[in-house]
Amino acid sequence: MALPTQTEDFPAWYQEVVKQADLAENSLARGTMVIKPYGYAIWEAIRDALDERIKATGHQNMYFPMLIPSSLLEREAEHVEGFAPEVAVVTHAGGEDLAEPLVVRPTSETIIWDAYSRWIQSYRDLPFLYNQWANVIRWEMRPRLFLRTTEFLWQEGHTAHETREEAEAEARMILLDVYRDVAERVMAMPVRTGRKSAAERFAGAVETLTIEALMRDGKALQAGTSHYLGQNFARAYGVSFLGRDGEQHLAEATSWGVSTRLVGGLIMTHGDDRGLRLPPLVAPIQTVIVPIPGKDGGTEVLETAAKLEAGVREAGVRTRLDDRTEQRPGFKFAEWELKGVPVRIELGARDLAAGVATVVRRDGTDKVQVSLDQVPARVLEALTEVQEALFRDAVRFAEEHTSTASTYDEVKARLADPGGFVTGPWCRDPSCEATVKDDTKATIRYLPLDPGEAQGGCVVCGRPATETATWAQAY
Amino acid sequence: MALPTQTEDFPAWYQEVVKQADLAENSLARGTMVIKPYGYAIWEAIRDALDERIKATGHQNMYFPMLIPSSLLEREAEHVEGFAPEVAVVTHAGGEDLAEPLVVRPTSETIIWDAYSRWIQSYRDLPFLYNQWANVIRWEMRPRLFLRTTEFLWQEGHTAHETREEAEAEARMILLDVYRDVAERVMAMPVRTGRKSAAERFAGAVETLTIEALMRDGKALQAGTSHYLGQNFARAYGVSFLGRDGEQHLAEATSWGVSTRLVGGLIMTHGDDRGLRLPPLVAPIQTVIVPIPGKDGGTEVLETAAKLEAGVREAGVRTRLDDRTEQRPGFKFAEWELKGVPVRIELGARDLAAGVATVVRRDGTDKVQVSLDQVPARVLEALTEVQEALFRDAVRFAEEHTSTASTYDEVKARLADPGGFVTGPWCRDPSCEATVKDDTKATIRYLPLDPGEAQGGCVVCGRPATETATWAQAY
Repeated sequence: MALPTQTEDFPAWYQEVVKQADLAENSLARGTMVIKPYGYAIWEAIRDALDERIKATGHQNMYFPMLIPSSLLEREAEHVEGFAPEVAVVTHAGGEDLAEPLVVRPTSETIIWDAYSRWIQSYRDLPFLYNQWANVIRWEMRPRLFLRTTEFLWQEGHTAHETREEAEAEARMILLDVYRDVAERVMAMPVRTGRKSAAERFAGAVETLTIEALMRDGKALQAGTSHYLGQNFARAYGVSFLGRDGEQHLAEATSWGVSTRLVGGLIMTHGDDRGLRLPPLVAPIQTVIVPIPGKDGGTEVLETAAKLEAGVREAGVRTRLDDRTEQRPGFKFAEWELKGVPVRIELGARDLAAGVATVVRRDGTDKVQVSLDQVPARVLEALTEVQEALFRDAVRFAEEHTSTASTYDEVKARLADPGGFVTGPWCRDPSCEATVKDDTKATIRYLPLDPGEAQGGCVVCGRPATETATWAQAY
Repeated sequence: MALPTQTEDFPAWYQEVVKQADLAENSLARGTMVIKPYGYAIWEAIRDALDERIKATGHQNMYFPMLIPSSLLEREAEHVEGFAPEVAVVTHAGGEDLAEPLVVRPTSETIIWDAYSRWIQSYRDLPFLYNQWANVIRWEMRPRLFLRTTEFLWQEGHTAHETREEAEAEARMILLDVYRDVAERVMAMPVRTGRKSAAERFAGAVETLTIEALMRDGKALQAGTSHYLGQNFARAYGVSFLGRDGEQHLAEATSWGVSTRLVGGLIMTHGDDRGLRLPPLVAPIQTVIVPIPGKDGGTEVLETAAKLEAGVREAGVRTRLDDRTEQRPGFKFAEWELKGVPVRIELGARDLAAGVATVVRRDGTDKVQVSLDQVPARVLEALTEVQEALFRDAVRFAEEHTSTASTYDEVKARLADPGGFVTGPWCRDPSCEATVKDDTKATIRYLPLDPGEAQGGCVVCGRPATETATWAQAY
C-alpha cells in the first residue's frame, strides 16, 4: 500500500511507515507495543552504542527490581506527585492480596536511593556511577508507537557524588558525551542541548538538561534528559556520608535516561515519502543485493550476486541477498526503500556482461556502475557517504526551521511558518510561558546550557528578559 | 569476615559468597533481588555468549509487553493451571481500577502466540524463529538469590514450525548447540542433557528437554529447558496456516529459556572455601595486578605495575591494577580470591630487581615467576589453562558423584553417599517417581534424550523398566 506523503498527513505517514516497515505494532494492554524484529534490531544498535559510551565514561551496569513498595515511592514529595497518576499497581500476587501494594517502576530513583542509603558510608565510596537497562511503565492516555507507550525500554543512570560541582559536571557530561554523541554520530540526528524551564523539569530535579531533535513536521522531540537532582533524593532516602571534613553530608545526585522513543526520533528525522532512511550505523541491513535474473532465469546472475554478497559481507557490512523468486525487482526496490536500507546493489544480465554492478544510495537518485571487484570498496564508501549525508540533510532542515523573534507576534508568525524552533528573550515568568503554550501549543524546549545575558524585553510581556528561550511544538 | 566452609554449611557458604563478593542482595518486595555491578557483569558475559549463538542459529530478537490481559492467560488450560498461583496482578493503573486485570508475565507464550495468530498465514511464513530478553515475575515462596527470585532476567525463545519434526529438532538444537555449548564452553559448567518426566514438564509442553548441572553440595540444578509444545498453543490461540497441501494446519511450537539462575549455577559449580572461582570467559576482571611496594613506598614498583597492566590490557585481557594504598597485599590477595579473579600478578621489589613478576592462578597454589616482558603471554596462557582446569575439575566432580543402582536400597544408599546423580531403571509409573521423592526428596532430573531400551526391573517396584532415569536432589 502506498504511504501517505509527509506533507499531506505526517501522523498517518508515521503510523504507516512503522507498520509497513514492520517495526512495531500495538499490543493488548492499553498503550503497550510489540517491538518487532526489524524495529528491535535498530534499538539494539542504538542501545549498544549507548552502552559502550556509558561504560567508557566509567559507569557500571546493575539491575534493580521492577516492583517498588508504594510507601517507598511516596517519600520524595515532588517525585511522587509527578509520577503517582501514571503508575500501575500490583495488588495481588501469589494467590493473595498483598498487604502493601507494589508499584511497577515508572523510573527507579526511589528504590535505588533507598539502597544507596545502605551502600554509601564515606566520601571514599563516592562517586557511585551506575546504570541499568530496564523496562518501565507509565500509564499513557494518548499512546503512540515508540513515542509514547505505556511500557518502554530504556537505560537509567543513577549517580551519587560528593559535591554539587561533580554532580553537575556528570549530568552535563552524559548529555554531551553520551547522548548527543550517540544521537549525532550514530543516529545522524542533530540535537540541540540545553536546560529545561522549571515547568518542564523532571519531578524532583533541581535542573533538567535535554537533547531536543527536530522532526520533519517541524515539531520537536525531547530525545533524552539528564538531571541534576541536588540533595532531594539523598534527603528523602537518608543518604548521608562521612565527608573529608569529618562531618556527615547528603550526597549529590544525578539521573539520566534515553529510551525506545529514540527509534521514533530516528524515523521522523530521516524518513521521506518512500519510507525509512536508516543511517548505516544503526541499519540492521546496510546493503541489499537484488539480482535481476531476466527472462532466461539468470543462473549466472544469481551466482554472481551470491559472490557479491559474500564479498560485501566479508568487508564487514551487514548484507542481505534478496533472491526471492516470487517478487519482481521493482517490488523489491520499493520494499527495501521502505525499510530504509542505505545501499542497494542491482545486478542484471547486462551489468554482468559489462562486468559491473549498479550501486544505489537510498538517500539519492543516482545510480553508479561499479566494476564487480570494486563493489565492496564502493559499498563501504557509500555507507560513509549516506551516514554523513543524512546528518547534513537533518542539520540543514533544522537550520531552515529555526528562527528568532523579538515580539510576540513574531513568535506566533514564526511558529506558524517555518515552524520548528523559535528563539526569543523571556522574563522567566511561568505565566508568560503558559501564555505561549495556551496560544500556540508551543512549549519552551530549551534554555541555553550556560545562562548568558538576555537581550531586550520578554517576547510575551516586554519586561526585561533574563533568559533566551527556544520554543517549539513538541511530541 | 571468613566464609563458612562448603562442607560445614553449603547454603551459608553460598549466601556469604554472594554477599561478600558483592554479586547481589535481597530487595524490598518479597523474593526480589538487586543484581550488583559485579554480579551483573557476569550475567552480561553469559547473556552475550547466549545472544551470539541464538542469532548465529537464525533467530531474531524482538520484544513483547510485560502486561498480559488475564483472560489471555487463561486460554491454554494446563498452562494457566501451572502459572496462575505464581502470577502478580496489576489491578489499578493510571489512577483507576482496571476493567480487566493485567498479569505480569511469568513467561510469554500466551501473548506471543496470540500475536502469531495474526502474523502466521501460510507455510511460506514459517519457521518463525524469535527470541526475547526480558524480566519475568513468578511469586516465590522460598526465594534464594539468583536461584529462585520473584523477578528474574532471562531469554525466552518462541518458535513456530510447519512440522513436528522441525519443531522437535529446533528444541533439541537449542538445548545442545546453544545451552550446552554456553554452559560447558563459556561457563565451564558441565551439564547432562535429557528429557524431563511428565511430572517435571513445563506447563503446556509435550516434551521438556533440560540441561542439568551438579553443584558442589551434590545437588542438581536445572540450568535451562527447551520445550516441544506440540500444537497446544496453536490450538488455544488459533494459529493455523495454509499448508503445502492447500489445507489449514495448526503450527508446531517450541519455547526455551535460561535465566539469571545460571549465575547461581556458576557460583556453586566452581566456588571453593576461599570464594568464587570464575572461568575467564565470564570473569568481569580476568587479571588483577597487585603491586607490593615494600617499606620505601616503591615508586618504581608502582610504575612497573602500571606498565604491566597496560601490556596485559593491550593483549585483550580485562585487567585491574589494585593500587589502593590503605590495604595490605595479603588483604588484597584474599579479596580478589574471594571475587574469583582467575589470574593474579604480584610485583614486589625483589621481583622487580630480578626483572620478573609472579603469576598466580586462582585455581591452584603454584606461583610462577615470569620475566616482565613475558607477562602478557603468560597471562593469556594461564587464562586458557584456568578455563580448561575449572571445566575438568567440574567434570571430575560430577563423575565422582554419579552412580548406578539396580535396587531401591541402592538408590537410597547412593543418594546418601556419594550423593549427586543416581541412575537406574524405571517403569514410568508416576507413583514410583513420587515414592522416591517422598522417601529421599530426590526427583528425576533427566531421562535419556533418545529413549533407549531399559534393562531390568524398575528400581522402585521391580516391574519391567521402560526408561533409564537419573535422580538427584535438586535446587
